[in-house]
Amino acid sequence: MDLDRSPLARPFPDLPPIDGATPRVARARYKEWDRCDLTLVEFAEGTAVAGLFTKSACASPEVEAGRAQIGGGRARALVVNAGNSNAFTGAAGREAVEQIQAQVAEGLGCEAHEVFVSSTGVIGVPLPKDKARAGVDAALAAEPCDWLEVARAIGTTDTFEKGAHASAFIDDTEVRLIGVIKGSGMIAPDMATMLGYVVTDAAIEPALLQELLSEANGPSFGSITVDSDTSTSDTVLAFGTGTAGNAPLVDHDSPGADAFASALADLCDQLAKLVVRDGEGATKFIEIRVSGAQSDDSAHRVAMSIANSPLVKTAIAGQDANWGRVVMAVGKAGEPADRDRLSIRFGGVEVAREGRAVEDFDEAPVAQHLKGEEIVVEADLGIGSGRARVYTCDLTHGYISINADYRS
Amino acid sequence: MDLDRSPLARPFPDLPPIDGATPRVARARYKEWDRCDLTLVEFAEGTAVAGLFTKSACASPEVEAGRAQIGGGRARALVVNAGNSNAFTGAAGREAVEQIQAQVAEGLGCEAHEVFVSSTGVIGVPLPKDKARAGVDAALAAEPCDWLEVARAIGTTDTFEKGAHASAFIDDTEVRLIGVIKGSGMIAPDMATMLGYVVTDAAIEPALLQELLSEANGPSFGSITVDSDTSTSDTVLAFGTGTAGNAPLVDHDSPGADAFASALADLCDQLAKLVVRDGEGATKFIEIRVSGAQSDDSAHRVAMSIANSPLVKTAIAGQDANWGRVVMAVGKAGEPADRDRLSIRFGGVEVAREGRAVEDFDEAPVAQHLKGEEIVVEADLGIGSGRARVYTCDLTHGYISINADYRS
Repeated sequence: MDLDRSPLARPFPDLPPIDGATPRVARARYKEWDRCDLTLVEFAEGTAVAGLFTKSACASPEVEAGRAQIGGGRARALVVNAGNSNAFTGAAGREAVEQIQAQVAEGLGCEAHEVFVSSTGVIGVPLPKDKARAGVDAALAAEPCDWLEVARAIGTTDTFEKGAHASAFIDDTEVRLIGVIKGSGMIAPDMATMLGYVVTDAAIEPALLQELLSEANGPSFGSITVDSDTSTSDTVLAFGTGTAGNAPLVDHDSPGADAFASALADLCDQLAKLVVRDGEGATKFIEIRVSGAQSDDSAHRVAMSIANSPLVKTAIAGQDANWGRVVMAVGKAGEPADRDRLSIRFGGVEVAREGRAVEDFDEAPVAQHLKGEEIVVEADLGIGSGRARVYTCDLTHGYISINADYRS
Repeated sequence: MDLDRSPLARPFPDLPPIDGATPRVARARYKEWDRCDLTLVEFAEGTAVAGLFTKSACASPEVEAGRAQIGGGRARALVVNAGNSNAFTGAAGREAVEQIQAQVAEGLGCEAHEVFVSSTGVIGVPLPKDKARAGVDAALAAEPCDWLEVARAIGTTDTFEKGAHASAFIDDTEVRLIGVIKGSGMIAPDMATMLGYVVTDAAIEPALLQELLSEANGPSFGSITVDSDTSTSDTVLAFGTGTAGNAPLVDHDSPGADAFASALADLCDQLAKLVVRDGEGATKFIEIRVSGAQSDDSAHRVAMSIANSPLVKTAIAGQDANWGRVVMAVGKAGEPADRDRLSIRFGGVEVAREGRAVEDFDEAPVAQHLKGEEIVVEADLGIGSGRARVYTCDLTHGYISINADYRS
């Protein structure tokens, strides 16, 4: 199935090299395609690592291994397989992961537990060990490549390559952060994974990197949804090579820690938005803002209820300022709300206030806003000071075509 | 917008009259259409009533009134308005409900709190009081009608009339139960309500009727989903006229109470299935069975996670035995599960067992099953004895056409 490039696509930015991180790609041919589908990033000794993994109770063996490894805090390599998620494959899947770790560890002269592995693609087929072995051999022997080639090699049916960068000053030393990501949600049948990787040259303690990554996750990767379906393989990893020469960041009070945290949060925000922009069938990027909730957590759940409502998403696809569906989605969220204090805005224009329609609101700017590619829907619950913001996309015939018309 | 009759439609059954319940319909013309859209059912003095209402925090004034009235246990009339849900309309909406109650109470010589009102249709427009007044006048003066006319008059963009019946013996006395319902979920833009009504001639205490209706609700109306979006107006009411001559049912130990409870549960099950059969864009009726969960409640949440997964629903629309998506939906449910004990069946054929694909399962009967109109998906979690069963439909281009292509 050929997928058209998303109308919401963004050009791939110029990403700088990161000292201490050497990416290579190779052809493992996990599917019948002629493209690089195995990525190997080698890291300098002492590289800090932090990670976030899917909460799925049916996680892939890669995720299980990553959860066990991440506490060690150090990484020497990342391997990403595209075309086969290796999820739900029993002992055979676990063996494939262990084989890759052992082979890379031998090739680079490191420990197996310093090799992180991710896979994305079809569920239920064990990753073929022979193809993995040949692919890793080819990658170990390959010339280094740039981040664009990495972004392309980790993709499955992504319609454009997704990357972002940021920087921060730690005292007088500038540190660089780059990120590549693939998505989004369920771009194509059985291709069901968001994998994101952040690489920085900053010197930073693994525990602090983990803390800052977890903090950055909430408003970024934790605040996007394409179709409410959560992959068995979702993974975000952050690597700090420590080659920038900054005074190492040890905790929140280290000079420059705040600037680094902001840059990391900005990078994760950019990456998360790119995933939504490649949501299957998406024609509109939607930002949902909820305010006046009982708490921030409550606001987040209400925002997710709106963002996951098929009726809200189809209304926006149809350029329809259907605030009744937003009311419905607030009401079903199971969170404290008072119908008679609820207000709703489309594109900044209030269309409902205190539990009823705003009479004679100016429809022209609302209609104009809904014709655009970036839609903002705001709901103020009027009962507290909790706030949240989530990103999603619309629900179109494209989604059905990708997921129903095609047979796996 | 003209909607084609659902391919899953069922013919309307012959429903018997119920002594003590007199239905009438009239034209209030809430929309620009030439059809009956106001229903008035008059009940004999002493009729018991029980009810279930949406849990939405943004419920309509009809639902708020109903919640307040239901504790009284007695009803003399039901009024159903179709074409305008009167939800999210502030004080004006409340006044419209109170006007209808007062007018009907005067017409029938009863108390206003014995008059139950439901409305379904567009959100955010106060029910026009002049049209309601003229419609109620016309209904009070109309000839009695049959239940098919009621099923038609309460519908909005339902594509077929939905009704069912059951009976039970209480000692030697046969009691009859009939039900009519409209739905389903969100059949058309802004038409967002499931309204169901059960009428029986059984003599039964209101408290017991409420208890039995609540018990019947879990596996019927509480176990269906079309698109996970919950209306602001969902209502199920049960009326017992007491005209059958049976010894009144007072509690669970009353002779015949079990038979009546079974008949009521059967009736609710039939009505709930009919709502799914009229799900927007539906081409397949899907039964999801979950077993081996930690508890029945946990099994229900897992089953709902599968039933609400857009990827599972689109796979079935595409006749694709994509069990990887079922694994995904189990994993994201947030309930206890063990990937390596999970088994999945389509149409009774095991396709995955103990955390991996069944090699060489017989694909022919699975493919044949998926071509049919009634699909059964089973997931056994293998960790306990909790069970649940829910009904849903597939997700097709029809759903998008109904909800996105059409502008409100």
